[in-house]
Amino acid sequence: MKRKICVVITARASYSRIKTLLIAIKVHPSLCLQLVITGSCMLDKYGGLTKLVSQDGFDQIIKISNLLENENSTAAAKTTGLGVIELASVFENVSPDVVVTIADRYETMSAAIAASFMNIPLAHVQGGEVTGNIDEKVRHAVSKLADIHFVATASARNRLIAMGEVPENVWHTGCPSIDLAIQVKKDASLQFDYESCQSVSSASRYLVVMQHPVTTEHGFTKDQFWSLLKAVDELNIPTFWFTPNPDYGAARILKEIQRYSETGKNLKIHFLRNLHPEAFLKLIKHCACLVGNSSTGIREASLLGTPVVNIGSRQHGRERSLNVVDADFSLNAIMEAIQIQLDHGCYESASLYGKGDAGILIADILAKMKLSVNKQITY
Amino acid sequence: MKRKICVVITARASYSRIKTLLIAIKVHPSLCLQLVITGSCMLDKYGGLTKLVSQDGFDQIIKISNLLENENSTAAAKTTGLGVIELASVFENVSPDVVVTIADRYETMSAAIAASFMNIPLAHVQGGEVTGNIDEKVRHAVSKLADIHFVATASARNRLIAMGEVPENVWHTGCPSIDLAIQVKKDASLQFDYESCQSVSSASRYLVVMQHPVTTEHGFTKDQFWSLLKAVDELNIPTFWFTPNPDYGAARILKEIQRYSETGKNLKIHFLRNLHPEAFLKLIKHCACLVGNSSTGIREASLLGTPVVNIGSRQHGRERSLNVVDADFSLNAIMEAIQIQLDHGCYESASLYGKGDAGILIADILAKMKLSVNKQITY
Amino acid sequence: MKRKICVVITARASYSRIKTLLIAIKVHPSLCLQLVITGSCMLDKYGGLTKLVSQDGFDQIIKISNLLENENSTAAAKTTGLGVIELASVFENVSPDVVVTIADRYETMSAAIAASFMNIPLAHVQGGEVTGNIDEKVRHAVSKLADIHFVATASARNRLIAMGEVPENVWHTGCPSIDLAIQVKKDASLQFDYESCQSVSSASRYLVVMQHPVTTEHGFTKDQFWSLLKAVDELNIPTFWFTPNPDYGAARILKEIQRYSETGKNLKIHFLRNLHPEAFLKLIKHCACLVGNSSTGIREASLLGTPVVNIGSRQHGRERSLNVVDADFSLNAIMEAIQIQLDHGCYESASLYGKGDAGILIADILAKMKLSVNKQITY
Amino acid sequence: MKRKICVVITARASYSRIKTLLIAIKVHPSLCLQLVITGSCMLDKYGGLTKLVSQDGFDQIIKISNLLENENSTAAAKTTGLGVIELASVFENVSPDVVVTIADRYETMSAAIAASFMNIPLAHVQGGEVTGNIDEKVRHAVSKLADIHFVATASARNRLIAMGEVPENVWHTGCPSIDLAIQVKKDASLQFDYESCQSVSSASRYLVVMQHPVTTEHGFTKDQFWSLLKAVDELNIPTFWFTPNPDYGAARILKEIQRYSETGKNLKIHFLRNLHPEAFLKLIKHCACLVGNSSTGIREASLLGTPVVNIGSRQHGRERSLNVVDADFSLNAIMEAIQIQLDHGCYESASLYGKGDAGILIADILAKMKLSVNKQITY
Repeated sequence: MKRKICVVITARASYSRIKTLLIAIKVHPSLCLQLVITGSCMLDKYGGLTKLVSQDGFDQIIKISNLLENENSTAAAKTTGLGVIELASVFENVSPDVVVTIADRYETMSAAIAASFMNIPLAHVQGGEVTGNIDEKVRHAVSKLADIHFVATASARNRLIAMGEVPENVWHTGCPSIDLAIQVKKDASLQFDYESCQSVSSASRYLVVMQHPVTTEHGFTKDQFWSLLKAVDELNIPTFWFTPNPDYGAARILKEIQRYSETGKNLKIHFLRNLHPEAFLKLIKHCACLVGNSSTGIREASLLGTPVVNIGSRQHGRERSLNVVDADFSLNAIMEAIQIQLDHGCYESASLYGKGDAGILIADILAKMKLSVNKQITY
Repeated sequence: MKRKICVVITARASYSRIKTLLIAIKVHPSLCLQLVITGSCMLDKYGGLTKLVSQDGFDQIIKISNLLENENSTAAAKTTGLGVIELASVFENVSPDVVVTIADRYETMSAAIAASFMNIPLAHVQGGEVTGNIDEKVRHAVSKLADIHFVATASARNRLIAMGEVPENVWHTGCPSIDLAIQVKKDASLQFDYESCQSVSSASRYLVVMQHPVTTEHGFTKDQFWSLLKAVDELNIPTFWFTPNPDYGAARILKEIQRYSETGKNLKIHFLRNLHPEAFLKLIKHCACLVGNSSTGIREASLLGTPVVNIGSRQHGRERSLNVVDADFSLNAIMEAIQIQLDHGCYESASLYGKGDAGILIADILAKMKLSVNKQITY
Repeated sequence: MKRKICVVITARASYSRIKTLLIAIKVHPSLCLQLVITGSCMLDKYGGLTKLVSQDGFDQIIKISNLLENENSTAAAKTTGLGVIELASVFENVSPDVVVTIADRYETMSAAIAASFMNIPLAHVQGGEVTGNIDEKVRHAVSKLADIHFVATASARNRLIAMGEVPENVWHTGCPSIDLAIQVKKDASLQFDYESCQSVSSASRYLVVMQHPVTTEHGFTKDQFWSLLKAVDELNIPTFWFTPNPDYGAARILKEIQRYSETGKNLKIHFLRNLHPEAFLKLIKHCACLVGNSSTGIREASLLGTPVVNIGSRQHGRERSLNVVDADFSLNAIMEAIQIQLDHGCYESASLYGKGDAGILIADILAKMKLSVNKQITY
Repeated sequence: MKRKICVVITARASYSRIKTLLIAIKVHPSLCLQLVITGSCMLDKYGGLTKLVSQDGFDQIIKISNLLENENSTAAAKTTGLGVIELASVFENVSPDVVVTIADRYETMSAAIAASFMNIPLAHVQGGEVTGNIDEKVRHAVSKLADIHFVATASARNRLIAMGEVPENVWHTGCPSIDLAIQVKKDASLQFDYESCQSVSSASRYLVVMQHPVTTEHGFTKDQFWSLLKAVDELNIPTFWFTPNPDYGAARILKEIQRYSETGKNLKIHFLRNLHPEAFLKLIKHCACLVGNSSTGIREASLLGTPVVNIGSRQHGRERSLNVVDADFSLNAIMEAIQIQLDHGCYESASLYGKGDAGILIADILAKMKLSVNKQITY
């Protein structure tokens, strides 16, 4: 009988990070994929995934709508609480052999709790890394609930082992997000999604901005946004600006984006919610500089050789390649850093986060490894 | 202005373990106590706490009823999910400066998630220890969400630091459960609660049994129960048997207890739900042997010098004193181990888990320490 | 394309009441059955249905565990709230054309709200009747949310129309519970389930007791139970006593049952949780008197001609046949009424609640009627 | 001891409708007010109330954040389910003698279920009226759960009695919304909130638009919005346009509003979220025509004599005065109807919905009436 692998996706970014794994599970002779879409993926406002995922050939998707309005600091907690409740029902009905949860957003905790409290082996992808924000707490807490770890880098593996995880359960497979980036990098024929990005399609040079609220610095969200916006506005280069994840503070940023949009001032800034994963990576590959605090700058962009300006504390401590220049949230710092990157141009591709076979490796381990829910810290 | 310290109690055992801290917070000039009672504490069936806590002089208790019927493996997850949701509302309404969560039961995760996701500094008592069961996962996951740690032993402190916690946030205060045990040990005048325990009050020698389901060994719950029951039945010594915590499997044990009770066979076994913390400790102090898998055997009993037979994997790995003899779940092993302890009699008091001032120490640190919700693994 | 009919069952009693409709939907060429099992049906403690329903040939059952421990007055509300949340997800995933909800237990409100708030046409079976208890409020509130009504009696139809429901949406089909009762009545060959009822299987004369807590008289639950128990105890006739539904007060009754069982006093009382619907009806058919406050006494028993003593306010106002003698909760009144019924013996069968074809009629209407979610009171 | 009256407010509109009752309860010698703010009132996006309510002198407000993102048809159900759960906890902690719920929005069901399932007498304000939309179902279902009814009109009282409510529990007090409208009508000195409405403050003539999605006509939401917007755009009169309630479809309307705003085309349309109740009524009092489908057009505007164009089915069947002209959603119909009203000008004040003393009357009845949770349909 095939092992049932239930993958829970809670955010648009997680889909592109896990897509090659989903495919590898789907085609694996000993595995059966159970795909759950929840959280912000269910909403167009945050770049809904349901259509996209269907178009990519995944069917029988289980949908869970659990996102609370996020103006309030209770929203992340309540969304997660609802997620625990509803995922428990999903797991009761589809009885997976393994649950897979991804990265470190707060909602990943839902899948981790529901699975571990129901004695279902839990696999965690992208554990062992270091950042700022609530993500740092969530990532390590999920690792402590997980039975199997698939990590992106050697130092992530070392860190999990130092934290007391059993070495044979920590697999250095590389990150599946890199699998897709490598395909995009290689395949010059991959079509750029002109329709979504028409306004700057012919731009010889453009920026991409991905800036998420740092929940632990909630008081500064608005100022941080305006520093960055002012910088981009002054640079006056065509820019694709992705609207933020539904973290505490996102409502505030969306409001400011709307206010700015209404001024009609800088027609060169084009706000986007989501792109198809491959189109997205193509956009990143060709951009002159990726600005903000998304992990895409650290992960996929390092492989693609894209110059990155990483702002603030959100990615603080995460391993990085030469393509990243850090800046704080002052207008000058941001503008200077972007200028350095525009002057520098493309970087060499770095394979820090993987070699392109992570999805297949992980699927294979999931098919073969002995499953258990009993674990104990090693010291 | 006083710091508001919100303590969330989810199980009867947690109350006696934290009672001296509650008092210390209540009387501290710079602190204000916000007490939340939730989970199984709300139900008589599991030894309801609400009356008891009122009688002890704590008022304005906030009550949250969130326990699902636990026949089903989803119950722990859903109870926790509901807890996250409802505690988020409590925190929104009482806006604590610090949330305190205790030990490692699954429901502690509710308070940990609600607080950390709402950027409220989270203090964790009894982290850094090692056991079996889902508790092991929960304990370390809560540590990863917590900003401040109050640990019972030096090795627990070392373990948290090894796990990457910042040393200055890990306080070796001893365990508040020991505070109460020391008071009971010293004070010969403390009244034993004869009313609740009338049937064996005059017993010269009696056993106490505290056996909880091991959720990760759910298939064996019934057999484990009957092994132990058969052993106690054959020993034919007056016995106080505490009904289990509301873990997955408890419904099954309660059903077996009922079935056994209906036979009316061994009138020497008296089933109990709860006792007042002091009465409970007095019961433990004077018993000939404490049998089962409760951490009370490892913690309070070591201070009280009570002989303990610890059965199965639940406390596997937890630091222990000489008073503990381990046994597996076979009838012979249990009977032999109990006989060894009956022959041995009292042990020397051991102060492994604290010196009796933990409550006061913790309150003092909570009053003075700099609060922050930003933390990062140290390596 | 077949119409998808989603039937939500929340209590053991509802299954036997709706079973012929489930079969009729399942075999109907234009209908497709989506069966959801939730609430107390998920728990053995309250007569779990999941195995039984599978054995009856229904598959792909969707399971929702949402029952809170019911010691507390919040349990019914929270169970219902959880039900709304989880059923909304079920409906989102299986997108039914019609949702069917049954009778008047508090949890039926979950299905009614989830369906009506999601613009899914809602059909209600057994509306328009009158009783006491919270059921009275729930039943009429559900009627006000429902778009299609399938009622058991002519006066129920008149009552719904008087309440402002559009006449052409109120169908007098009879009650599906009677369908099964007629089959049992006719078929002498139907096997009685001796295994479950071994202790009185050879009894020439026996009582059946079905007594549920009246939530709006919560303070009296314990006294009501003991009045009835004393009466049955003194009559000293073999008795099958069904444990109560999970209403507020059930925990108290279960505790008293346990206490009574432990006395081992009256070995003639056999406590039961559930029986297969047909076995149950056979038990009722042959019993000397059905005692308590279940609607079974009013509905199925009138068809079967079983003498019934109906106690207290729970069925107050419900249309009844000659087979019912009412009594209040005094010991004398109960004993006298039972004696009257024992002296009287069997009654003529009455077809007040249906003629045996309700399931087929309802399925047919569901297949053909125009569906709409727009309704307005008629005055 | 004072009777504790817990009033649950779930939407901005409900606050102005109930404000005089809140004051009357607060100052009543035998009553104690427990005020709960929940649902969309908690969010700025939908005109958050928490600050406003504090400024009006109400303190110790209990806050419950339970609003899910409403792009999806499950949101209303899940928000209501969460509301039931959380309000049950509130009621458990503050133990009200009566719970008051207002009008007919879907979330009112939360308070109605939590209270009635917990045996707390439920009072309903604004029952017995007729409209379209899901509101129609909700309103009558809440009436069926309620023990006490405070209705606005004589025909509403007759309707509830016809529906089987006990006449002595149906009080024709008038609607508290009219109390405030009468104060505003009389008091010429009441200050208009110029700051919020600066752009048209000096307008001699302006429109107000209040258009909510009709959840049961979800497919038409976008078209309905654009018909109305086109009409207003062509009329080219200064317009205050209130953003919609958080019903299913609101996300779509907000998106269209944003799209329209970004065009910067019609600077005469000013989008608003909320106003202080008195400022709001002043705005309505002085406007040339109130356009849309809000009940304000039917209720307060009839008292204020404001010309109203009521569009579509949402208020279908609600009693109205001469000030209302109905139109369907075609561009021509809307423009014609507005023109008729502009030509007509002010209407005579009509007291159909009350005489201005509803708040005081209701508070008095709440203080004196015998409370019970037992009710039964009268036929």
